[in-house]
Amino acid sequence: MKLEPCILVIFGATGDLTHRKLYPALYNLWREKLLPERFGVVSIGRREKTPAELRADITGSIERFSRTPHLAGVDLERFLAMFSYYRLDFNDLDGYAPLKRYLSEKDKIYGTAGNRVYFLAVSPEYFALIARQLHTHGMASQKGSWQRVVVEKPFGQDLTTAIELNNDVRRTFQERNIYRIDHYLGKEMAQNIMVIRFANTLFEPLWNNRYIDHIQLSLTETVGVEGRGPYYEQAGALRDMVQNHMLQLLALIAMEPPVALDTESIRDEKVKVLRSLKVTPEGVVRGQYGRDPAQRLKAYREEDRVAPNSVVETFVALKATIDNFRWAGVPFYLRTGKRLMRKYSEIVIQFKKLPGVLYFEDTRLDSNILVIRVHPDEGVYLQFNAKQLGTTSMIVPVSMDFCHNCADGLNSPEAYERLLYDVMRGDSTLFTRWDEVEYSWRFVDQIAQWWRGDRNIPIYPSGFWGPPESDLLLAKDGRRWLYFVRNGGS
Amino acid sequence: MKLEPCILVIFGATGDLTHRKLYPALYNLWREKLLPERFGVVSIGRREKTPAELRADITGSIERFSRTPHLAGVDLERFLAMFSYYRLDFNDLDGYAPLKRYLSEKDKIYGTAGNRVYFLAVSPEYFALIARQLHTHGMASQKGSWQRVVVEKPFGQDLTTAIELNNDVRRTFQERNIYRIDHYLGKEMAQNIMVIRFANTLFEPLWNNRYIDHIQLSLTETVGVEGRGPYYEQAGALRDMVQNHMLQLLALIAMEPPVALDTESIRDEKVKVLRSLKVTPEGVVRGQYGRDPAQRLKAYREEDRVAPNSVVETFVALKATIDNFRWAGVPFYLRTGKRLMRKYSEIVIQFKKLPGVLYFEDTRLDSNILVIRVHPDEGVYLQFNAKQLGTTSMIVPVSMDFCHNCADGLNSPEAYERLLYDVMRGDSTLFTRWDEVEYSWRFVDQIAQWWRGDRNIPIYPSGFWGPPESDLLLAKDGRRWLYFVRNGGS
Repeated sequence: MKLEPCILVIFGATGDLTHRKLYPALYNLWREKLLPERFGVVSIGRREKTPAELRADITGSIERFSRTPHLAGVDLERFLAMFSYYRLDFNDLDGYAPLKRYLSEKDKIYGTAGNRVYFLAVSPEYFALIARQLHTHGMASQKGSWQRVVVEKPFGQDLTTAIELNNDVRRTFQERNIYRIDHYLGKEMAQNIMVIRFANTLFEPLWNNRYIDHIQLSLTETVGVEGRGPYYEQAGALRDMVQNHMLQLLALIAMEPPVALDTESIRDEKVKVLRSLKVTPEGVVRGQYGRDPAQRLKAYREEDRVAPNSVVETFVALKATIDNFRWAGVPFYLRTGKRLMRKYSEIVIQFKKLPGVLYFEDTRLDSNILVIRVHPDEGVYLQFNAKQLGTTSMIVPVSMDFCHNCADGLNSPEAYERLLYDVMRGDSTLFTRWDEVEYSWRFVDQIAQWWRGDRNIPIYPSGFWGPPESDLLLAKDGRRWLYFVRNGGS
Repeated sequence: MKLEPCILVIFGATGDLTHRKLYPALYNLWREKLLPERFGVVSIGRREKTPAELRADITGSIERFSRTPHLAGVDLERFLAMFSYYRLDFNDLDGYAPLKRYLSEKDKIYGTAGNRVYFLAVSPEYFALIARQLHTHGMASQKGSWQRVVVEKPFGQDLTTAIELNNDVRRTFQERNIYRIDHYLGKEMAQNIMVIRFANTLFEPLWNNRYIDHIQLSLTETVGVEGRGPYYEQAGALRDMVQNHMLQLLALIAMEPPVALDTESIRDEKVKVLRSLKVTPEGVVRGQYGRDPAQRLKAYREEDRVAPNSVVETFVALKATIDNFRWAGVPFYLRTGKRLMRKYSEIVIQFKKLPGVLYFEDTRLDSNILVIRVHPDEGVYLQFNAKQLGTTSMIVPVSMDFCHNCADGLNSPEAYERLLYDVMRGDSTLFTRWDEVEYSWRFVDQIAQWWRGDRNIPIYPSGFWGPPESDLLLAKDGRRWLYFVRNGGS
């Protein structure tokens, strides 16, 4: 697909996201010839930066964070020639008119005709301000050219603030030009969920409450808040992980087949899942990490810029249900947390046992299990029953594995590569529509409400699987958390 | 399970089967402590053999054919002590009374109480004779002890001769004491077919004409008749492979779930498949191997003791259907032959495509495929669709593999180990009941009838996949032969 010319304007180009994700993603897109022929990047930041400093920034970022190394043979000069830096204090309203002139200049140089991707890699309090200035100065007029805006999470603190934020951005940009990033949707296996479900006779007919016993979704981390205390004190695991990534994955897993594969048809179905999603106070568990048993790691409350009596959750586990004909009776167990035993993201689909006849008279026979591995492994794992090898008739679970990123030399694109590419070609399928955000907040807000004022939060030791209440949540239903991450096994 | 004491009496102990299969199987059963505590083997042959010669026989057989090597640490003496040799000309009717005395002696020595397994590893023309003498001399009286008889294929030449043979054996032994060996049923993956079908939620609900497009069954060989010309001139591929192994595997693949896992319930369902099996003259292809293109290998008609104008088939391909609600409309394609390109036995289940919506609007999307690998690999292979890795939306088939005999140090028991073990414990599930034999012959006889008098047989070059008519048989239906044997791939 040939991309239309455009300029990518990064607000907040001196920040972490640009450095860790955007520059390396642009580099890999460039190497794979997936950038428009006529293309430029304008990095905007508050600091002064000479061209030499910008080049050093970008080169350093690629060397450190690119999934592919910078090869000696590659003419990096041609890549670097696409970049320029523009200094702007976002609060300085006088700065936007000169920015407009600067970008128009660049349009002439690159032949980009006014097409823009505005990437707001800034703190959310600037979203409204920048959007308004783009509007005021006619930089988002959509006249004879297009302008799209990319916003990063967090999109609000709750439904009320999210609505405010959205209204601010919507004053300048129409819904179809707003790209709300949830980088989990850019991950290979998240994109693969729909294909696995709807392109396989082996799975499609079984994808309902007749055959599926329950579904687990785990997005776990081993690190703590890592200096992001102030952000995390506001967010917590519920807003940082559940409201966006987890509910998005759950929607893809659970949605009805869309009418067609276009963006809006898919989003329509995702919204229906979010609207049908139910949870009860007894179905939610939170926790906060303490020190590890050896006392080497700080407890959350000891982290930099975290309140010493904070009750912010670093762990959430919950049991949700989806009130529709497909999923009635099938629990969805979600868990996420920091300082857990392993870092991985996995979707576990446990099938029901067959009726208790023949081999299933033996109630100890294992269930079939399908695992969609999202991170760090990317692939599909299947566990089924077979006769044990040898002169016995024992039935044992055996497994098969398809690993997407295990083949030699295969290196999955980073989520941001796919997402930037999609913004440039105008495909918003992997971005969240406003009503998805809205219903996610409605779901999450009720949980936050239950917790409000309750200063009792279970503390779990770092390096464990969260508080015991999490295991109990499943144990009450006769189930347990499963994980299949390689070199792990459950 | 503790086995009852018994003596294994091998008629035809100087033959190939005993040497290649029975002695090594006994050795491995002994090493795995799966023989009865009180147990003896009497090898019977026409030739004179000293105890030293017998020992050399057995030792040589183990060294050459055992799947596990003879280890220095193993006390082979204790194994060899179980064996003795008895010379008998099967035609010499005066020889059976002394044999009776000899076996009674052995009973006293081993403490085996008259329990016997008579293994007829002889040419079928001796089945009736030996059975009658065992009866006449009271060696199969079933009084206070049990006697079982094991017969090897071929069980008859057609339905008429099979009935005769059966009647002969039945005069001495009741049906439940007759163990008709089809060694394919002793293979790991043949035993696994039922488990895969009935112990997995992933497969059981899909196992019918709503989800399965067609099934292929290939049992192919690379060798020629290898000096067995006289036998093969009488049999041909139809009687040598289709009548027994292929129809047995097909019955396991296609049968309805049995009422219970006991022997007779399973056989009842297998017979129902064989009775519902249909084939038309247009649905059958035969062929005979010629030389290879380099003229290094003999054509079938040039083989030792083969008629130079023989029209015996060394290749059969056929398209069968099963007229019941589960399988109506699903063709079963079977092929077997000698001097083909690869040696393997595989069952390929190709699923239907989903209705032509969403991803299936692209009609080139591959079908899901399940492969049960019977030989030489033992395992399960699954091919399904996933998104191609990278910034594309291409859907590609990906595969998963579960290999039963690939793990280090795992070494599948030979079919005869399982089968001997089952005879001794009195489990005839993996043996064929008379009505299975009967309906198999009915199916095969009609095909032989169509061929009778037709001296036109397609000749195919050695090392290819049989005659072109075989490919055409599937091409007419818009299909093609698939194979997934490792280092092969179709």
